[in-house]
Amino acid sequence: MIALATQNGLFAIVARELAAVEECLRAPAAERGALLATVAHYALGSGGKRLRPALLLLSARACGGENGDGATRSIRLASAAEMMHAASLLHDDVLDHAATRRGQPSAMARWGSDVSVLAGDFLYARAIQDLVADQDRRILRTFADAAVAMTEAEVLQLQRLHDLQITEGEYLRIVTGKTAALISAACRSGALVAGASDAVAAQLADFGLHLGIGFQLVDDALDYSAREDRVGKPVGSDFREGKVTFPILHLRRVATAGHRRLLEELAVCTDPSPEDLQVLRDLVDRYGAVSATMQLVAEYLDRARAELAVLPESPACQALHRVVDFVRERDS
Amino acid sequence: MIALATQNGLFAIVARELAAVEECLRAPAAERGALLATVAHYALGSGGKRLRPALLLLSARACGGENGDGATRSIRLASAAEMMHAASLLHDDVLDHAATRRGQPSAMARWGSDVSVLAGDFLYARAIQDLVADQDRRILRTFADAAVAMTEAEVLQLQRLHDLQITEGEYLRIVTGKTAALISAACRSGALVAGASDAVAAQLADFGLHLGIGFQLVDDALDYSAREDRVGKPVGSDFREGKVTFPILHLRRVATAGHRRLLEELAVCTDPSPEDLQVLRDLVDRYGAVSATMQLVAEYLDRARAELAVLPESPACQALHRVVDFVRERDS
Repeated sequence: MIALATQNGLFAIVARELAAVEECLRAPAAERGALLATVAHYALGSGGKRLRPALLLLSARACGGENGDGATRSIRLASAAEMMHAASLLHDDVLDHAATRRGQPSAMARWGSDVSVLAGDFLYARAIQDLVADQDRRILRTFADAAVAMTEAEVLQLQRLHDLQITEGEYLRIVTGKTAALISAACRSGALVAGASDAVAAQLADFGLHLGIGFQLVDDALDYSAREDRVGKPVGSDFREGKVTFPILHLRRVATAGHRRLLEELAVCTDPSPEDLQVLRDLVDRYGAVSATMQLVAEYLDRARAELAVLPESPACQALHRVVDFVRERDS
Repeated sequence: MIALATQNGLFAIVARELAAVEECLRAPAAERGALLATVAHYALGSGGKRLRPALLLLSARACGGENGDGATRSIRLASAAEMMHAASLLHDDVLDHAATRRGQPSAMARWGSDVSVLAGDFLYARAIQDLVADQDRRILRTFADAAVAMTEAEVLQLQRLHDLQITEGEYLRIVTGKTAALISAACRSGALVAGASDAVAAQLADFGLHLGIGFQLVDDALDYSAREDRVGKPVGSDFREGKVTFPILHLRRVATAGHRRLLEELAVCTDPSPEDLQVLRDLVDRYGAVSATMQLVAEYLDRARAELAVLPESPACQALHRVVDFVRERDS
């Protein structure tokens, strides 16, 4: 439903190109052996918002790039960006032992961790193959840098599981690497494919970076505030997996000494009970941890919006502004 | 010990460049956070033969490439090839649940599967970063194609575990993808970096492909013939992991109906006892499965050698011939 809403509304201006991206995403599934085809198709098709492809296409258009058949390069790059994203989700689900993804059983749950690791490797390698076909080496470098940032962030996240001493700087490095880096790469690549200057491309990259940080912060807030039937995973999942996110950092800062001790006890618990999670949610409510997170979101999204000032007025530029609003207002 | 022997003897002609490769391989470890640095260092440093870097460097020299300081590009590419190899080993060990690698505890055993998956992702992404820096896009495409072939082969291998009905064609596709593709990419890239024609580069690629198939076939033979203290893993490991390799395909073809049934019973067994493995080794001995495998090895190595005829006589070309001999004669 989200996918439909965003594609018919928010991304309407690049709807034709997004349809072509869907075609590209069917290719790796069609050309391979049965199992890899099935898993790749499942991982690429399970209700994603296609945010990264859409941002790449909108960035290209906003920088004067062509549309429709003239957008062949952007379409292929947009598809590669989504493959990299799907590859990272496949590996994430292995690391998180996640049973569900977007309300469906995860590939991990359906085919096991071995197949998920390999399907992730495959989609990542296929993305690189598509990126290599592009003539602009700066674009490939952009995505390669994002891939390195993503794995570094995942490792840092792994190292800081159940660690209430994580600094805000470390938390933001994790958020930036695991989510914002690829979104930023998509925006920069869109600008580059449209022939924008390096300076404009850098501003689009910053737009994507701040938008991506905001996007992940909203995710982290929704983990404590959303309804399970909307986000497709149980509320409090992050905490259960040991991920100390911004709402908890807020609690740590503002709670009384007694509540901080309670928080520390809960944080080291690797298998919190429903009662433990209720205690946590009560603390989150009492100290306004979700709205504190959304305040930080607003700061990042304002910064993202400011970067768009470099662009001339256009429908694509307006669409990018609306994506910022969408990130702020999304509830799943 | 193997590493020492090969580097002082077989690869002596590119010893300076290989030393520079070792420097490059220390870089990803040095520049990152503590855990990733440690695991990357461990995965890159644990007694590998540096076969892929050496073949890339020797191929470059044999095609008229420069040496020493003039070989900066080859050195960086050789290092990237080894990173890709190490990345694939990290993921292999996760898939195989391997406790050891080259006689040492595997990264999997030391740091767990989550860290191994991420360290593999990291080394692969770092390799791509280094490959992107090269000016010749054909080289990056070569390695990207190899990466796709590697994951496809691993998936096929996974699908055919414990499956005695695997065809010889499927087995050879697995061998080609999981081992020969990257060795072939290294040889082709060496030729390209030295400015060889596409035709010569294609012959070097075929040299690497046949050499790589031979190399893997020897591996599969050694699993039934070598002493545990030499290969650094228990004899019969492949069978225990459900991998039906060439010695078993030979048995299937030549054994009596009674022995074939015995083989089928053993193959589906996910946890064979020492007695089961002894029965298997007796069958392997009785039907000469190891020497049948080595006969196929000889065919592939002859083909590899024939491809070298395209090269002018040179010390580097002689060294490539000696690598062929080394693969044939290695006992660990």
